[in-house]
Amino acid sequence: MSATQTATADAANGVAETMQAMGRQAREAARTMAAADPGSKNGALFAIADAIEAAEADLLAANARDLKAGKGRLDDALMERLELTPARIAAMAEGVRQIAALPDPVGAISDLAYRPSGIQVGRMRVPLGVIGIIYESRPNVTADAAALCLKSGNAAILRGGSEARESNLAIAACIERALADAGLPAAAVQVVATTDRAAVGELLRMEEYVDVVVPRGGKSLVAFVAENARVPVIKHLDGVCHVYIDDDADIDKAVAIAVNAKTQRYGTCNTMETLLVSEAVADRVLPRIGEILAQAGVEIRGCDITRGLLTDAVPASDADWGEEYLGPVLAVRVVAGVDAAMAHIDAYGSHHTDAIVTENMVNARRFMREVDSSSVMVNASTRFADGFEYGLGAEIGISTDKLHARGPVGLEGLTTLKYVVFGDGHVR
Amino acid sequence: MSATQTATADAANGVAETMQAMGRQAREAARTMAAADPGSKNGALFAIADAIEAAEADLLAANARDLKAGKGRLDDALMERLELTPARIAAMAEGVRQIAALPDPVGAISDLAYRPSGIQVGRMRVPLGVIGIIYESRPNVTADAAALCLKSGNAAILRGGSEARESNLAIAACIERALADAGLPAAAVQVVATTDRAAVGELLRMEEYVDVVVPRGGKSLVAFVAENARVPVIKHLDGVCHVYIDDDADIDKAVAIAVNAKTQRYGTCNTMETLLVSEAVADRVLPRIGEILAQAGVEIRGCDITRGLLTDAVPASDADWGEEYLGPVLAVRVVAGVDAAMAHIDAYGSHHTDAIVTENMVNARRFMREVDSSSVMVNASTRFADGFEYGLGAEIGISTDKLHARGPVGLEGLTTLKYVVFGDGHVR
Repeated sequence: MSATQTATADAANGVAETMQAMGRQAREAARTMAAADPGSKNGALFAIADAIEAAEADLLAANARDLKAGKGRLDDALMERLELTPARIAAMAEGVRQIAALPDPVGAISDLAYRPSGIQVGRMRVPLGVIGIIYESRPNVTADAAALCLKSGNAAILRGGSEARESNLAIAACIERALADAGLPAAAVQVVATTDRAAVGELLRMEEYVDVVVPRGGKSLVAFVAENARVPVIKHLDGVCHVYIDDDADIDKAVAIAVNAKTQRYGTCNTMETLLVSEAVADRVLPRIGEILAQAGVEIRGCDITRGLLTDAVPASDADWGEEYLGPVLAVRVVAGVDAAMAHIDAYGSHHTDAIVTENMVNARRFMREVDSSSVMVNASTRFADGFEYGLGAEIGISTDKLHARGPVGLEGLTTLKYVVFGDGHVR
Repeated sequence: MSATQTATADAANGVAETMQAMGRQAREAARTMAAADPGSKNGALFAIADAIEAAEADLLAANARDLKAGKGRLDDALMERLELTPARIAAMAEGVRQIAALPDPVGAISDLAYRPSGIQVGRMRVPLGVIGIIYESRPNVTADAAALCLKSGNAAILRGGSEARESNLAIAACIERALADAGLPAAAVQVVATTDRAAVGELLRMEEYVDVVVPRGGKSLVAFVAENARVPVIKHLDGVCHVYIDDDADIDKAVAIAVNAKTQRYGTCNTMETLLVSEAVADRVLPRIGEILAQAGVEIRGCDITRGLLTDAVPASDADWGEEYLGPVLAVRVVAGVDAAMAHIDAYGSHHTDAIVTENMVNARRFMREVDSSSVMVNASTRFADGFEYGLGAEIGISTDKLHARGPVGLEGLTTLKYVVFGDGHVR
């Protein structure tokens, strides 16, 4: 081995050892957290919020170092996400307090019933254990994710993007102080300090210590995680969301929903990327939508019929039907009716969020039942697919997986159910 | 390439192509099954039960061919599991009818509530899609698993052990006839005919077509699946189950539960493998248990204190604490109390099923909350950890995973929840 190779191997071993040690400590802390009562967990959360507010100057200084290092290296959107302001710091603290105010899910027993044998069987909601979160850019995720994991009785290992390292460590220092004040183990929330990507690989393979990993970031991160994970993953793939305007749609509602689903925010995963319109109403609804979207600067890529109705539309290729634009572009297709719309969604969608606009009960019921997406909507904008809008209080991500958690994942998604059995000397 | 290598590569390609085609057909069938009403699914299940009974002679003949091929090659336990008798065939048909009689889980909407925005949000229970089941020996799993998947609105790809191939294909023929009679797609249940293990590898990697794989079999199968799966897996690892007899145990209940948990059946995953006894009651309870187990021919491997009380006990090594004997052997350890018992279970257990025997409310509550196992019991035998005993009607397996399904997995474990949103033109 050359000196360089040895140094690299030593560094890799160092990262592996560091991660293993974090894993062991997290597992140990998870035991304490699982048994912690709501009072002490909420105490820690309020202390975290207070510490974040008190450390505003430190956080801004750390963030300034990240911004300086990123200048010229990161694009504008990334720089914007990375930036902390006094308002964002206050919002971060407020978010932690809101999580403290949510009902504590841990220990709730449901479905307790006597069985013919005389035993009483129920299910108790319990923490998953140790949760790894891998995320990018936004430093507020450090506080959000830590708060959600603590509230749900889990220990967390957080690995933020290297571009936000200084900001994340400054937030971590606030969390550490608060945990100590609340008498909870420091290892209940650990932030990975190294920017070496080997740390992510190690986190994904520590089956003994990590119960689930939640990647929050772009496609390359999620793909890397899916490729390398040996531990279970709650993942979030593309959001290729559809609105289908049915024969029996109310045209005013259809226009409002389509415009909102596309333009309320372009870059979110629940933004509409393809509009499907029944041929029965295309000539009444598309010109109105087309006019509003043209004013908003949205490019339309349409099928032949669409282009006949909207002269500015460019031809859509087959690739457009599966595209997550995340920007001011919309694919539009005129279809024969609800069956053709569902077939299109099944063939090209990503099973994230899909909506039908219709006054027709039969078509609405079929769409709700048959479209296999994490959120299915009637007469509402796809933009509602969100943990806050659904009443979860906060979300750690939106799952496009089918197992365990589907759609927005809040506190409940960070817990699981175990069976509890009560007897009085019962035997089989 | 040599001729042999080419033939092997061709065969492998053949298996891959066959599996891909099965996957495509299963995905297609899953769409129909997801929308099928309870009447047609139950019709198919009753038709399967009838077809199995009507085919008794065919099934016995096919099974005889498997038994003949296995003779001298398979051990007695395997031969016993493989064998079909008229009584077992009748029980198989009856099991399918019982599954038909269960409530249909698909389409149920829960938690439907209005949100401040005015939208109404709920969750609908829907099938997972395509379920792969990999199993060994027992041909009745073919009927059981097919029935559970059909009832829950899924399509199934079943891959039984090569030793049961003829029996499984004969059962598959019954299922195929019944599906045709009920007007459901033949591909709703497909049985893999090839005995090539490459088929399993392919099944585990078909993420596009397979939503979850459930391995039902020994450790080597489960390990192979864990190692090779790219699709989600509901897996079942060891059952290293404990009974802890507390300071405040009722001695009669403790003796009855310990004896039942060990001896009612030796080879099941919910059988007690380690008995923990508080030192406060060891001298009153262990001699009584020891005497009964000695008569039953159970070998005891004990700690030093145990060996002082039970002279026949052999010394336990550290390896005994983590051992799943699946036979007439029991590890016994005297511990200081409930904390030491929970620490032992945490260190050596497999998070499957653990029980405390106590009349003490404080210790019972702590044990129920803090022991992190799929089933936690007070004053009941670990042998109750079972889908039928829990009222699930039937089980496809017992999950030792934490995500999605934990403990016995019945119809609900083969479904998932999607969000449904109702609005009336609502936008954000």
